[in-house]
Amino acid sequence: MIEPKILKGFRDFLPKVAKKRQFVINALKEVFQLYGFEPLETPALEYEEVLLGKYGEEGDKLMYRFTDNGKRKVALRYDQTVPLARVVAQYQSELPIPFKRYQIQPVWRAENTQKGRFREFLQCDIDTVGSSSSLSDAEIISCTLDSLKKLGFKKSQIWVNDRTIFDTLGLKKEEVIILDKLDKIGKEEVIAQWEKNGRKNAKELFDSLKNSEPTQKLNEIFLILQKQGYKSGEDFVFVPYLARGLDYYTSIIFESKILDQTSISLLSLAGGGRYDNLIGMFSGKKVPAVGVSFGFDRIIEAMDELKLFPDDLLTTNILITVFSPDLLEQSIKIVSELRSENINTELWLDPEIKLDKQLKYADQKEIPFAIIIGPDEAAKNVITLRNMKTRDQKEISQEELINVLARSL
Amino acid sequence: MIEPKILKGFRDFLPKVAKKRQFVINALKEVFQLYGFEPLETPALEYEEVLLGKYGEEGDKLMYRFTDNGKRKVALRYDQTVPLARVVAQYQSELPIPFKRYQIQPVWRAENTQKGRFREFLQCDIDTVGSSSSLSDAEIISCTLDSLKKLGFKKSQIWVNDRTIFDTLGLKKEEVIILDKLDKIGKEEVIAQWEKNGRKNAKELFDSLKNSEPTQKLNEIFLILQKQGYKSGEDFVFVPYLARGLDYYTSIIFESKILDQTSISLLSLAGGGRYDNLIGMFSGKKVPAVGVSFGFDRIIEAMDELKLFPDDLLTTNILITVFSPDLLEQSIKIVSELRSENINTELWLDPEIKLDKQLKYADQKEIPFAIIIGPDEAAKNVITLRNMKTRDQKEISQEELINVLARSL
Repeated sequence: MIEPKILKGFRDFLPKVAKKRQFVINALKEVFQLYGFEPLETPALEYEEVLLGKYGEEGDKLMYRFTDNGKRKVALRYDQTVPLARVVAQYQSELPIPFKRYQIQPVWRAENTQKGRFREFLQCDIDTVGSSSSLSDAEIISCTLDSLKKLGFKKSQIWVNDRTIFDTLGLKKEEVIILDKLDKIGKEEVIAQWEKNGRKNAKELFDSLKNSEPTQKLNEIFLILQKQGYKSGEDFVFVPYLARGLDYYTSIIFESKILDQTSISLLSLAGGGRYDNLIGMFSGKKVPAVGVSFGFDRIIEAMDELKLFPDDLLTTNILITVFSPDLLEQSIKIVSELRSENINTELWLDPEIKLDKQLKYADQKEIPFAIIIGPDEAAKNVITLRNMKTRDQKEISQEELINVLARSL
Repeated sequence: MIEPKILKGFRDFLPKVAKKRQFVINALKEVFQLYGFEPLETPALEYEEVLLGKYGEEGDKLMYRFTDNGKRKVALRYDQTVPLARVVAQYQSELPIPFKRYQIQPVWRAENTQKGRFREFLQCDIDTVGSSSSLSDAEIISCTLDSLKKLGFKKSQIWVNDRTIFDTLGLKKEEVIILDKLDKIGKEEVIAQWEKNGRKNAKELFDSLKNSEPTQKLNEIFLILQKQGYKSGEDFVFVPYLARGLDYYTSIIFESKILDQTSISLLSLAGGGRYDNLIGMFSGKKVPAVGVSFGFDRIIEAMDELKLFPDDLLTTNILITVFSPDLLEQSIKIVSELRSENINTELWLDPEIKLDKQLKYADQKEIPFAIIIGPDEAAKNVITLRNMKTRDQKEISQEELINVLARSL
C-alpha cells in the first residue's frame, strides 16, 4: 500500500483553514473591485523561456522546470508579474489603458523548507499598468490600506519611500541590499557592512539618508492621499531608509506595517511600488506600472493571532438529525424549507446511527444548532431546537422555526 | 526579445471571461455550502507514486510527471478524487464522518488539443465520504439539480442508473464501454459492436437492458427525492442504458442533461455516482463514497449560449472623470464617498488625458455611468451624470448623487 503523504513545503488545507483562506480572498476581491480592479488568470505552466532569467540567478534555481511530453521546456508560475507582462504584450489591442487587474493564484518555488518557507503559496496582487501618474501610485496605497482595514486590522500603516533618493545619494545596488536588512541587523551593522563593502564616510551617508526630504513624486502622492482623508503620520509615513529588496522598482516603494499589538507587528503584510521597466519586456516598449503584493499566508497568521476571523465562518447553520428510520420523513420536509430560506442546512445522512453520535458530528463541525424530531415531537407537530453551545433545548412549532432561526443566526 | 505566447491547451482568462468564471464558482459554492459541503484544497504537486496507476494506462500517459530539484518523482494533480482519498487516509482522526467536501482547483492533463481539449482546466467536485445510505446519494443528486438551477438553467434533468443492473444482466466491461457511446453511435451500432465482440443475442440483451426495472437502491433514492419535492420524469428519470465511462463506479451513476433549447443540450454538465472501492486505496479500509463533478468549461459555454450571465457582472459601476488637473480635487472627493457606500468606483488616473478618451475607457470596460465635473459644474456645485449606454446626461447636486445611483444600479 502507498503511504498517504505530501511533499515537503506543500500543504493540504482542511475545511477549517480553507474557510479562512476563502474569507480573506473574498474580502480582498471585494475591495479590489470597489477600486475597479478586474480579475486575470494565467496558466500554471508557461514556456520556460518566458520565465527564465526574469528573477535573477536565484529565481532560475528555485523555479520548477521540466520537459513535457511534447519535448517543450516548461516552467511552473513563479510569480504573477512576468505573466502580467506577457499578457500585456500579447493582448495589447484588447486591453484598456490603464489596465487594472488583480490576480490571486498559487506560485511554486523550490524554497529551503527549513526556513519555514513554502514551495506552493498563494500570491495576491493588484497592479495598474499603463499610467505613470501619481494618482495611480496613491490609488494602490489607499487600496492597500482599505484592504487591510476590510480584513479587520485596525491600525495599519504604510511606510513609503522613493528609490530615486538612493540614486541621488549615490547608494550602490549592494548597499541597498544591505540597507534592506536594517530591521534585522540594526543601524550600526548596516554602517559596518557598508564600510566593509568599501564605502567611506558610511555613517555620514546613513545620516544624510535618514534626513532626506520626500521627493516631489512622494509629495504629490501624499497630497492626494490627504485629500482622500488618509492621515500623514498615521495612515502613511515617509521612511527614507525603507529599501525593498527587489531591484526592479524604479520610483516609490512601500510596505504595510501592522501596529496592532502582535509578535508579527514588524513584519509587513503587503508591499509594492512602481516598476516602469519590467512590463515592457515582451513588447520592447516602456510600460509604466505600479502594484502591491499581499502576503497571503502572513495575513492568515496575523488574523489568527489577532482573532479577526468571525466565529461562524461559512459554516453549516443547522443539522437536522434523524431520530429513527420511520421518522425520517419529518426531518426531510424541514430541510428543503430551511434551504429555500438560504439557511445552510445539513440533513443527517444515516438513519441507523444513534442521536448522540449525530450531535457529536454537529459539535465536530461546529454547527451551532440541531433539530430533533422524535416520536413525541412528531405527535405534537413540533420540533426540538438545540443550541449546541449552551446545550439548551426548546420545543417550538415548525411554523415558528424560521423566525427563531432568523433571530439567532 | 522573447515572443509572448502560451502553451497549447493552456489559456489566459482576461477580465471579461475571468469574471464569468468567478460568477459560476461563487454560485456553486453558495449551493454547496447550503448543503453543508466544506472546502478542501490539496497541493498541485504530489509524489508521483500517489497518483501513478490510479487512472489506468491512459492516465499515466497524460499525467504531467517530472523529477524535482531534490530528485523526487512528482506529478501534477490529475483529478481531485485521488487526492481526496489520500486526505481521507492521512487525516482520518481529524475529519468528521461523513466527510462532505467540495474542491474547485485546476488539474493538468496532456490531452490531444486537436480534439478541442484543454491541458489545464478547473475541476469542480462535491463528494460525501463515509456514508453508504441512500440519503447521501439523493443529496448529491438534489445538490446537482439545485446548483444548475442556481446558475439559471431552467430545465435540467438528471438521468440516473445503477451499474449493478449491468452485472445482473452479465454485461462485460468492454460491453459497457461500447454502451457508453450510445449517444454518438446509436442503438444499432451498439448492438453490432456487441456482436462483433462475441456476444450472442445482442439485440435481446439490449432490449432486456432497456426494459430493466429500477433497483431497490434506485427506488429508495427516487422516493427520497420525491419527498423533497423533486419530480420523477421531470427533475430525474431512470435511464437503464446510461453507462458512465469510468469503471470505478460501484452502484448508482447519473448525468445531468440540459433540456433548454441549445446545441449542447445533449451534453451533460455534471456527472457522478457512487464509488465504494476507491477512497480506501490508501488506508486499506473500505470507505463508501458518492460524488459529482461539474463540467466547468461546458457550463460557461452553455451559460453563454443561453445568455444566463447577468449584464453587469462584477463591473465597476461608475467612472469619475477628471476634467483638468485644476479640477482634480472635486473628483477625488466624490470617489471616497461613493466607495464608502459600496459603489464600485473608478477614478480616472491621468488628469492630462482628454475627456473623450476617458469616456472611451468607460465604454471599453463597460462601465454604465460616468461623472463629469467641469468648470461649470464646479461653480454651481453640481455634477453631470452620464449614462454610458443611452448617452443621456443630467446635472444633479452632489447630495442627490448617491440616491440617484442607488436607484439606477
